[in-house]
Amino acid sequence: MTKWVYAFGEVKADGKAEMRELLGGKGANLAEMCNLGLPVPPGFTITTEVCTAYYENKGELPADVESQTLEAMAGVETLVGGKFGDKDDPLLVSVRSGARASMPGMMDTVLNLGLNDQTVEGLAARSGDARFAFDSYRRFVQMYSDVVLGIAHEHFENSLESYKESKGFNLDTDLGAEDWMKMTETFKSIVADKMGKPFPQDVHEQLWGAINAVFGSWETPRAITYRRLHDIPDDWGTAVNVQAMVFGNMGDNCATGVAFTRNPSTGDNRLYGEFLINAQGEDVVAGIRTPHAITEASRIESNDDRYSLEAAMPDNYQELQAICDKLEQHYSDMQDLEFTIQNGKLWMLQTRNGKRTAEAALKIAVDMAEEKLISRDEAILRIDPASLDQLLHPTLDPDAARDVIATGLPASPGAASGEIVFSANDAEAKTNAGTDVILVRVETSPEDIHGMHAAKGILTARGGMTSHAAVVARGMGTPCVSAAGSLRIDYAAKTMSVGERVLKEGDIITIDGAAGQVMAGKVPTRHPELSGDFATLMGWADAARVMKVRANAETPDDAATARKFGAEGIGLCRTEHMFFDAERITSVREMILARDEAGRRAALAKLLPMQKDDFFQLFKIMAGLPVTIRLLDPPLHEFLPHSDAENESVAAALGVSAVEVAARTNELKEFNPMLGHRGCRLAVTYPEIAEMQARAIFEAAIAAGAETGQQVVPEVMVPLVATKAELDMIKAVIDRVAEEVQTEQGVKFDYLVGSMIELPRAALMAGEIAQTSAFFSFGTNDLTQTTFGVSRDDASRFLGEYVEKGILPNDPFVSLDIAGVGQLVRMGAERARDVKPKIKLGICGEHGGDPASISFCGETGLDYVSCSPFRVPIARLAAAHSALGGGESRTA
Amino acid sequence: MTKWVYAFGEVKADGKAEMRELLGGKGANLAEMCNLGLPVPPGFTITTEVCTAYYENKGELPADVESQTLEAMAGVETLVGGKFGDKDDPLLVSVRSGARASMPGMMDTVLNLGLNDQTVEGLAARSGDARFAFDSYRRFVQMYSDVVLGIAHEHFENSLESYKESKGFNLDTDLGAEDWMKMTETFKSIVADKMGKPFPQDVHEQLWGAINAVFGSWETPRAITYRRLHDIPDDWGTAVNVQAMVFGNMGDNCATGVAFTRNPSTGDNRLYGEFLINAQGEDVVAGIRTPHAITEASRIESNDDRYSLEAAMPDNYQELQAICDKLEQHYSDMQDLEFTIQNGKLWMLQTRNGKRTAEAALKIAVDMAEEKLISRDEAILRIDPASLDQLLHPTLDPDAARDVIATGLPASPGAASGEIVFSANDAEAKTNAGTDVILVRVETSPEDIHGMHAAKGILTARGGMTSHAAVVARGMGTPCVSAAGSLRIDYAAKTMSVGERVLKEGDIITIDGAAGQVMAGKVPTRHPELSGDFATLMGWADAARVMKVRANAETPDDAATARKFGAEGIGLCRTEHMFFDAERITSVREMILARDEAGRRAALAKLLPMQKDDFFQLFKIMAGLPVTIRLLDPPLHEFLPHSDAENESVAAALGVSAVEVAARTNELKEFNPMLGHRGCRLAVTYPEIAEMQARAIFEAAIAAGAETGQQVVPEVMVPLVATKAELDMIKAVIDRVAEEVQTEQGVKFDYLVGSMIELPRAALMAGEIAQTSAFFSFGTNDLTQTTFGVSRDDASRFLGEYVEKGILPNDPFVSLDIAGVGQLVRMGAERARDVKPKIKLGICGEHGGDPASISFCGETGLDYVSCSPFRVPIARLAAAHSALGGGESRTA
Repeated sequence: MTKWVYAFGEVKADGKAEMRELLGGKGANLAEMCNLGLPVPPGFTITTEVCTAYYENKGELPADVESQTLEAMAGVETLVGGKFGDKDDPLLVSVRSGARASMPGMMDTVLNLGLNDQTVEGLAARSGDARFAFDSYRRFVQMYSDVVLGIAHEHFENSLESYKESKGFNLDTDLGAEDWMKMTETFKSIVADKMGKPFPQDVHEQLWGAINAVFGSWETPRAITYRRLHDIPDDWGTAVNVQAMVFGNMGDNCATGVAFTRNPSTGDNRLYGEFLINAQGEDVVAGIRTPHAITEASRIESNDDRYSLEAAMPDNYQELQAICDKLEQHYSDMQDLEFTIQNGKLWMLQTRNGKRTAEAALKIAVDMAEEKLISRDEAILRIDPASLDQLLHPTLDPDAARDVIATGLPASPGAASGEIVFSANDAEAKTNAGTDVILVRVETSPEDIHGMHAAKGILTARGGMTSHAAVVARGMGTPCVSAAGSLRIDYAAKTMSVGERVLKEGDIITIDGAAGQVMAGKVPTRHPELSGDFATLMGWADAARVMKVRANAETPDDAATARKFGAEGIGLCRTEHMFFDAERITSVREMILARDEAGRRAALAKLLPMQKDDFFQLFKIMAGLPVTIRLLDPPLHEFLPHSDAENESVAAALGVSAVEVAARTNELKEFNPMLGHRGCRLAVTYPEIAEMQARAIFEAAIAAGAETGQQVVPEVMVPLVATKAELDMIKAVIDRVAEEVQTEQGVKFDYLVGSMIELPRAALMAGEIAQTSAFFSFGTNDLTQTTFGVSRDDASRFLGEYVEKGILPNDPFVSLDIAGVGQLVRMGAERARDVKPKIKLGICGEHGGDPASISFCGETGLDYVSCSPFRVPIARLAAAHSALGGGESRTA
Repeated sequence: MTKWVYAFGEVKADGKAEMRELLGGKGANLAEMCNLGLPVPPGFTITTEVCTAYYENKGELPADVESQTLEAMAGVETLVGGKFGDKDDPLLVSVRSGARASMPGMMDTVLNLGLNDQTVEGLAARSGDARFAFDSYRRFVQMYSDVVLGIAHEHFENSLESYKESKGFNLDTDLGAEDWMKMTETFKSIVADKMGKPFPQDVHEQLWGAINAVFGSWETPRAITYRRLHDIPDDWGTAVNVQAMVFGNMGDNCATGVAFTRNPSTGDNRLYGEFLINAQGEDVVAGIRTPHAITEASRIESNDDRYSLEAAMPDNYQELQAICDKLEQHYSDMQDLEFTIQNGKLWMLQTRNGKRTAEAALKIAVDMAEEKLISRDEAILRIDPASLDQLLHPTLDPDAARDVIATGLPASPGAASGEIVFSANDAEAKTNAGTDVILVRVETSPEDIHGMHAAKGILTARGGMTSHAAVVARGMGTPCVSAAGSLRIDYAAKTMSVGERVLKEGDIITIDGAAGQVMAGKVPTRHPELSGDFATLMGWADAARVMKVRANAETPDDAATARKFGAEGIGLCRTEHMFFDAERITSVREMILARDEAGRRAALAKLLPMQKDDFFQLFKIMAGLPVTIRLLDPPLHEFLPHSDAENESVAAALGVSAVEVAARTNELKEFNPMLGHRGCRLAVTYPEIAEMQARAIFEAAIAAGAETGQQVVPEVMVPLVATKAELDMIKAVIDRVAEEVQTEQGVKFDYLVGSMIELPRAALMAGEIAQTSAFFSFGTNDLTQTTFGVSRDDASRFLGEYVEKGILPNDPFVSLDIAGVGQLVRMGAERARDVKPKIKLGICGEHGGDPASISFCGETGLDYVSCSPFRVPIARLAAAHSALGGGESRTA
């Protein structure tokens, strides 16, 4: 016979902590506390398997569940004394859900179950407190009706409020036994009215109603959404915990509270918590009464002149402190506890690993490792790499008021304040004049880069998490809120408005790129701290990991940031970002507008010294580390002007007619630029561009090597390769230029030529392409676009709905689609290694900074990941997790 | 020791016909003719392996080649009498290239090699004809200089012309021995002048010069281009044939000619050919003298009153006829022969399978099968499926004059004449008024469909072989010339011009979609004949093939054509093509502009009866055959107007503001529509569209079944699936609608729901997707786009160059990229069959009509291919080839 019900009681339990999957987190920990000899009110857990069976049988419970439950209830009666439903000595129970992971949106708790018109009298008699008994009864009716019967609690609250008004009462404590008796009657009549039948008096009907409600709540929309968001499988199910009630509200030697074994905000190694005397658990969290501090120390710290638990109930406090120590030692982690004191006796109602801020997590992990409570590897695994993001950017002071005027997507973390500007040029001008600005655009384009660089923050009305603004901002580490759809931006009037509210150029706003919020005025920020515990933990992580971490960077600033954050090289330098510079865009356009090779070569000759200097700076900053430079990637039309006015100014600058500029622009226009004349296709048709870039790279490498004394081995990367023949052809050009430069300068140097693997065909043909390639860098942004047939820029129209409806578990541009795109990465890596076992393999898409994706890269045996500078620490930690076998899977 | 040289002589030879790869076509057949006892001048073949070695050794011949050649030359001397380079009895030889496949662009022939200032005297003495000897010598100097030394033949011709003028001669025959002696001297001095050294007198230097020239010509640009175009691998190499000269120009008992064992234009089973008395081979083809007919029959047919070979040299004619019969029997194919008669003796210089027109090929194959010369299977394999295209469309009368004004790409075969119109509306209006028109556009868009349907032919100035115009035109079987780049089209003036020449609306032009030509005026056409030999052969092909052939069709016209051409169902009905119809586009736009589901439903309700009728017509026409209907695929913005004027008229029709229409259009605009909100993504966000379409399909199926008495089992196809969850969700909608319709109408029916596999991810996840899918249709157009990351619409910018430079062997949108995209198709098929062995698999991209791709589909075990109606016969034949193991590979 399947064991569906697990009892726990004094000193012993059927279950234990390791049975979390079967008993849920709460049930397993209640059992464990019993086994540890801690004071836990007896009870039992109905397993998660019952929940699964319940859904398989369309809402029917398995046959044996009832008998096992009644047997367990009898056990509780024996331990506690009293009897469930007995009118003289009634046993009351709580019914709580308990999934493997705590999960809002599910039925949480019904307290005081077992009360009815008769048992309430028994409770009153035995407690000698009719007020307590009827207060408990009305609470039960309200809770049960709300969560089991689906009657909104407003009905009860409203009627209580009217009653209090009619009586001139202010507080619930003003009501006496008679009042609660009346309220109970009123509440029951509300139920009868809404349900067409009376409130259930049969305590077993109450019990099964509550149990079924817990199972039923597993499929509420909120619970489903939560699971979706937190990657919890639907088939995990929830357990139900039924436990004898203990009362913190039976008088002044009663109390209830919550405690953390260490401070969950700061990580300080001191007991921290709140409690209330003469209250039930719900009162602590409900905010009606302000809870007291548990310790004297925190009471004093918070200037609270009310008694602490330490002062008011020193024995219970001592016992609680001892239990905290015991539980933390036992679980090797900071615990979050619930307790109740009934008539001077301490009861433990829950323990679990406590949630904490990123800062606290870091401190607790490092402290515990130094206390030898956990190993360094465990400390590393305790920190969610993604959480570091909070620590690496300025953040808003959590205590400051926020006048939120709009919300959008949290496109690039960090907070920033500044004057509103509406154009990249204004952003640059004002910044140069010493003013902090936030660049506000409907959406950004590559021509806004200089303004994006200048601005302290970026705000757009359109575009998703992977829009131009978002990607570039994350790359720069600049805070960005994108897709703030309620904003109406009027460039002409230089205003942005939300509803009736209009802000104009020069007004100060603050954006919180981690929360996606836009606020009026300046909200104070806090700055990140990269030393101390952070540095300690990152040092441990670096020692543990196998994969290298590089950064995607092209400007000296980005490169310096990357190096500061611990990058071990540059995995992707996008040369085109340098093309938009005001100084050189004219030469770039000259090159594009040239009608023949000679014209292009003349324009390229002007670009050569500038590109050479770009690379020279990068090589110097990254001295001793590898730098991968990608040849020109975007379609040429991206560099051309798009308005008539701009056409004319470009035409004037180039000495050609505006008509000619417009004609060429039109000629280059593409239906699907993403799938157009770009990447290595440019080098195939215009080899002279690749030639110029190769020359700039090699000449810069020689110069930087001479200056730093550390020889540069540049890695030249060919983008968008689909066939070996493309790479062969372009490699021949690069090799020829290398030969020429070596001859001209009389210097020998090494270099590598490799290719991006960012098209399905490249992954499929990796065995062939690897023959020509010294390295592969998986460009998972484009690979995701082509494998899914989804354009990042257009995906916002439907991708959100896809994730919401559960068609996709995640945005595949944020976290690599391991099932699909991952197959191609694995295939590419395997086929390449088959023909060239030592080929260097890396990844340089946005996924290079995503922990789950990094974990996959580790499993696939890639040599490095490359990500935006601000995500380098995250990647270092995620790579350590991967090496320690604790990689972030989606269903952790 | 490697055998590099293969001799052939009287009655026996070292080689044979099967050694084509080693000896080249010409060499192998010369050997074979010797073995058959036919009169062949002795000689030897230097193998293709020598050519390969020559390139591997950078232009050096292997060591033993020289000694083996000299030995073979000695053998020839023994057989012929005379000696190579001997001043008294010189042996003269021809040197000819001979690859496996005949290949223009290579060095063809040097005749009379072995002549120098001394041997010419010997030749004169032995032949007793000094004029012949010196004429031969000057011919040799000219030929050798042209093909070996690279001196353009104009130099020689010009000097001969001056000489003739100075002497008052009209014809070459006016020159006597003295004249030719002088000319020889002049020619030699031209060489000495150009080369800085005298014409080589050493016969061995001549021989090796010619042999090296043959090998060198393998890599001339023209040869390389030809190989590229005809898919001949670069490493095949060419052989060199050295053969004793025989002379057709030693007097009136000498002749030379070419013959076909059957008529290569019509296929008639009668000897056919031309000859000249007292001439060398080059004279027959050079066009200086008009050759005579070989047979009396053809002489009479062509009203030629000059003698035939049959009449002039009856014995030689009889011998030739006997040899023809023998060779045709031996090779089981129509032969193309070269012969020379020297002093009354017939010599065979070449035999090979003769080239023929598609019409002749068909007749010859069917005749030979009926003569039992070959089997029916062989007859099937003899016909290149692609060649049927010529037979299925009207073609221009080959004898009519053509005033070609521009050329473009042969986008859709067939010829058509009509008045020029510049808009789809004009095309429709004029056609309705009974006028044939050619629609001339810069490029076409989906909004031109009605005009494209109406027009007899389509001409565009832009867009490649897979542009909108090309794809749609091929689908409709309408002739189309695309990318006629020299055309300047002025919509406002309603003119098109090429250089100075201006044509205006209403002028008549003719286009030849098979040749890519645009002609002024009307050129007479011929109509296709689908009966007779065609029908016979197609019957045999149908019996032989395994794969089914369906058609891509949506209009009743197309469906009827498809059925006429033997389609066994519809593999792809693109429902969106019906949306552009003038009657319904307004409702479509209403649906798109609707701001909520209710609005969309209201508009969809108007579309329902129209869609239902579309499907009803299709089901009726295809009664008894399967019909696959794809749900709406393109992004919605494709249906919206794009100009202000159109916006306004749409707004007026819909009763909304033009601003609103423009705003919605703008909102729907996409950066990369190909990768945007389309395909099943539309059904995910707007399930009500799929609902309407499913209802229209099911209601139509019931109605058509009732009318025809043949129950319809509709196949509903979901496009652009990337994940199983998408298909699950949409299948649930379709199943629900099916249930509803069955309940409403009280009728049960069967139907299938399947998915397009047109994204790499779908192929990768085929095992999962197949669980929900009753069938897969590989959409290789989109699959090629996404696998390569190349947009069909933009590819014309670089794809041509890719094929030219050899980076790609073919346009992958025309012939499936088996190495890359093919992997995904194979993977998709295998993974699907692993979970569902009986899943129906087909292909419905453009590749479904390409023989090489069809062959691949056969190997992959697909159940059917689906192609445009006009390609159905081609697909039927190609499927038969595939089944017979003779599929069109790229390197056939």
